Amino acid sequence: MTEHAHTRLRVVRAGIDTYQQPVVYMHRDCPVCRSEGFAALTRVQMRVGTREVIATLNVVTGDHLAVDEVALSDAAWQAVTPEAGAYATFQHPEPAASAGALRAKVFGARLDDADCLALMRDTAANRLSDIELAAFVTACAGERLDHGETIALTRAMVAVGERLDWGGGPVLDKHCVGGLPGNRTTPIVVAIIAALGHRIPKTSSRAITSPAGTADTMEVMAPVALDLAAMRRVVEREGGCIVWGGNVRLSPADDVLIRVERPLDFDSDGQLVASVLSKKVAAGASQVLIDMPVGPTAKVRSDAAAQALAARLTVTGSAMGLNLAVLHTDGRQPVGMGIGPALEARDVLAVLRGAPGAPADLRTRALAVAGALLELAPGTPPGQGPALATQALDSGRAWAKFLAICEAQGGFSEPGEAPFQAPVVAPRAGRIAAIDNRRLAKVAKLAGAPGAALAGVVCTLRIGDPVVAGQPLYTVHAQSPGERDYALAYAQTHTDILSLETP
Amino acid sequence: MTEHAHTRLRVVRAGIDTYQQPVVYMHRDCPVCRSEGFAALTRVQMRVGTREVIATLNVVTGDHLAVDEVALSDAAWQAVTPEAGAYATFQHPEPAASAGALRAKVFGARLDDADCLALMRDTAANRLSDIELAAFVTACAGERLDHGETIALTRAMVAVGERLDWGGGPVLDKHCVGGLPGNRTTPIVVAIIAALGHRIPKTSSRAITSPAGTADTMEVMAPVALDLAAMRRVVEREGGCIVWGGNVRLSPADDVLIRVERPLDFDSDGQLVASVLSKKVAAGASQVLIDMPVGPTAKVRSDAAAQALAARLTVTGSAMGLNLAVLHTDGRQPVGMGIGPALEARDVLAVLRGAPGAPADLRTRALAVAGALLELAPGTPPGQGPALATQALDSGRAWAKFLAICEAQGGFSEPGEAPFQAPVVAPRAGRIAAIDNRRLAKVAKLAGAPGAALAGVVCTLRIGDPVVAGQPLYTVHAQSPGERDYALAYAQTHTDILSLETP
Repeated sequence: MTEHAHTRLRVVRAGIDTYQQPVVYMHRDCPVCRSEGFAALTRVQMRVGTREVIATLNVVTGDHLAVDEVALSDAAWQAVTPEAGAYATFQHPEPAASAGALRAKVFGARLDDADCLALMRDTAANRLSDIELAAFVTACAGERLDHGETIALTRAMVAVGERLDWGGGPVLDKHCVGGLPGNRTTPIVVAIIAALGHRIPKTSSRAITSPAGTADTMEVMAPVALDLAAMRRVVEREGGCIVWGGNVRLSPADDVLIRVERPLDFDSDGQLVASVLSKKVAAGASQVLIDMPVGPTAKVRSDAAAQALAARLTVTGSAMGLNLAVLHTDGRQPVGMGIGPALEARDVLAVLRGAPGAPADLRTRALAVAGALLELAPGTPPGQGPALATQALDSGRAWAKFLAICEAQGGFSEPGEAPFQAPVVAPRAGRIAAIDNRRLAKVAKLAGAPGAALAGVVCTLRIGDPVVAGQPLYTVHAQSPGERDYALAYAQTHTDILSLETP
Repeated sequence: MTEHAHTRLRVVRAGIDTYQQPVVYMHRDCPVCRSEGFAALTRVQMRVGTREVIATLNVVTGDHLAVDEVALSDAAWQAVTPEAGAYATFQHPEPAASAGALRAKVFGARLDDADCLALMRDTAANRLSDIELAAFVTACAGERLDHGETIALTRAMVAVGERLDWGGGPVLDKHCVGGLPGNRTTPIVVAIIAALGHRIPKTSSRAITSPAGTADTMEVMAPVALDLAAMRRVVEREGGCIVWGGNVRLSPADDVLIRVERPLDFDSDGQLVASVLSKKVAAGASQVLIDMPVGPTAKVRSDAAAQALAARLTVTGSAMGLNLAVLHTDGRQPVGMGIGPALEARDVLAVLRGAPGAPADLRTRALAVAGALLELAPGTPPGQGPALATQALDSGRAWAKFLAICEAQGGFSEPGEAPFQAPVVAPRAGRIAAIDNRRLAKVAKLAGAPGAALAGVVCTLRIGDPVVAGQPLYTVHAQSPGERDYALAYAQTHTDILSLETP
């Protein structure tokens, strides 16, 4: 398409955070709108110098923007990083190369390697609108991606991002399928594995739909927003790291997809597998342990679902050249006492320090995961993984390693405590029959987690525990009274989050 | 949920057109953002006086908004219509009542009446985000809505909007499934039907993915943005009208869905039927004729697809109490000479006036549709519909009625002509073998249609016509040189829009 030099506009900063979506603001009477036929919500391709971005147009009808200016949202500004006084030119974007593949998938066709590559390339380059991304995620939901498509999507996600090379030798990694509040084994597992001399360069995500991701929790204790060079220095020095994956551009298409998966709050087995394994392959992993909690309110709800997902993970992992094992774990109730970034960090630290009162369930699960992961590594005598993990933890070597990793990442901090705390009490006596993970997580989110790092829920009760009327079932932690009240209001209308049976 | 009086903000106008999507802008340091834990792209429920709207939050990081202010996009402003100096309060929106139904449909469950009602109620009230709407449209794409769901969705769309009551007696209506550029029979059919003394209160849409909707074309000749009272006056006086449906709130949920269907450029049989028939039922129609063009580049591409869609229309129409017939028509090539609002209006006027050189195909099709519709009406002798229609047109009664309807709607205008016109010529001699409706429509859209009312394409050639090298195949009409050049650039890279065979 031709570009029109006469339609260039002076770039100014809008000072508006539209999340990751690039938005440009033009005056209704600006020559670009008029001559190019752009209207509100048009997608436009903007070039500033050598950089390009596809952005959504919002049309300014007021008088705070000149007709020869274009204002850029924060995301658009970061994409083109204009110099002072820069000018931008505009054109209609070419239709995304993947538009045909998206349409075909929506109408039930199968995606091949080329389709997946086109889709992930356009996704990573932000050439698809949020509406198109939502259509793609929906078209792949449930069982609508088969094994072959899952492998193709995984390969494509790897292909469009960076791929780390650790120079040969085993590289260990782990992942939890999620849905279990407080199941924050990663910092403990990484510390154990690295303390035993293995390499485990762990990248983690922030929360998508949960009250805390591992990156959110780790960030309470040490910086996690490391770039690739910094991450590499940490791993070379300490053998392991626990960093946020967002700065290292591993599987960037997945990061973009998460932008729509988060508000939709649904994904699919195929996309879950592609998301998880593309990150592992891109991070250079060779041995991967998947922790898969199964329970009626976990992400994986039944044994049948667990088998299906495990099969897909194993088939795809094998196709990607990974030595991968799936550990099915109990997903009926939360792990540890805290739910929320800082509250989970406190549980992690208690286990690593061997503190009295440290949550035994978190310790047990971390040792099981670390043990199973060790068994995948060359050199571990069969059946000896759990014992080796336990020795590393009980000897204090894992705690020392954790502190060393934190220092290498920029320095350790002790988690703080939320200023507003309020109990939710048992309406009557009884015995805990079940715990609704999703609704308990919802309370933690309404309390402010993960945005408010100190916010969340503390719950020490477990299935089978007896309670008396008026006894606290769990405690809401919040950084503002408004958020505390939201969480309490929800808790008061959902009295069966911890459901009681008459003993 | 509790509302927090201390978090009220002074309402100002942002002066930003975000299309129909309500957006509110708050400063990063404003008390609502801080105390309520709102972050960029959060959905917030805003109340101003007694009016409420759910809007997307954009966070202002610059200094052009005070911390105690909230700026409203045009759509948000219209939703709450604040008085001078008004204050707004905010809360987290309740999860949409239809969230569970949406999720279930995405994962393959069947929608029942209650699901559809919840979904359409939330859709009409703008309680679903564009991302959620895109997920819904995708989850219903292709064959994913069965007949029962289609009926339930149609009923729900009718239930959440206005429903016109014409006081008994037959009310005629027609609809074209579309995909055939230039097939602008509606103004002619309405004029014929009304001239014969029947009632035909026609509401039409603007273009969704085409270069012109009937409302766009009609607007070139007369005002169409009438409210319900004005529409009623026109119909009471003249028996018929041709107005834009957007101001009369018939099936408002459908109007919202179109917001995401337009950029996605796909819909489904089920949604198409629900969309079309909900509008007909809401408009009070009792006799409905569906014009269904079938051709390789029309919306309906094969006889099998036509049969399936016709069956769905008939079953749903019957369930909704309509006397409905489907007319399968030739959809292999455009109708008339013009594609684009004003160019199609000129064809319509030529047929109504009986002008020499009026497009014969448009005349023939309009008479076929009007004839078939008349046969549905009580009192028409069987087989006499086409003859009655032809008499009304050839006698000049239809033209007189059309002018009277235009006057009643606010006054007739003669269409203008585009200032920039350029031919696309045949690269070689040959005979027209096929015409790609979609790509020809795309040229018209790149030329500016329907936003630029005079823009589009004029094409007088038809399948079978011989051409010589260098002869114009079609002519691009544009209101700006930029748009003309876009259209020509596309035409030059797609030389088979009119494909030639060696004679």
